[in-house]
Amino acid sequence: MKKAVFYHAGCPVCVSEEQEMLNLIDGNKVEVEIGHLGDVKSRLPEAENSGVKSVPALVLDNGHVLHINYGAGIADLK
Amino acid sequence: MKKAVFYHAGCPVCVSEEQEMLNLIDGNKVEVEIGHLGDVKSRLPEAENSGVKSVPALVLDNGHVLHINYGAGIADLK
Repeated sequence: MKKAVFYHAGCPVCVSEEQEMLNLIDGNKVEVEIGHLGDVKSRLPEAENSGVKSVPALVLDNGHVLHINYGAGIADLK
Repeated sequence: MKKAVFYHAGCPVCVSEEQEMLNLIDGNKVEVEIGHLGDVKSRLPEAENSGVKSVPALVLDNGHVLHINYGAGIADLK
């Protein structure tokens, strides 16, 4: 099973895209963890180290980062 | 079956993200058509009317547009 982390910050763009992405993704192939950077700011360094520049973003276990639309820059969340 | 159109323009960012997205998406729930705006410029108006601002982008049949990372602006493709 592949793993992926969907980082978001609770903004309207994030929540909407989160639902869209979770509806599209094959749950049998990919296990998606949600990382809420608005509520859990301690995960910001982890997200930045993964290459996340803005939220919402999906980090795949091969290291690729898919930035999906634009809700907020990572600097705005600190 | 839901339908979606993945617009791209053959740029390296697009091709890479196309593969990532197609690997993630549940083919039993969503049928993804590929719209190559580099090769088929006649589809540019259709993409713009769908709300595509840059490629790669995935347009869902509920009208939502997911811009995934940033390969090129739609104006750069004309």
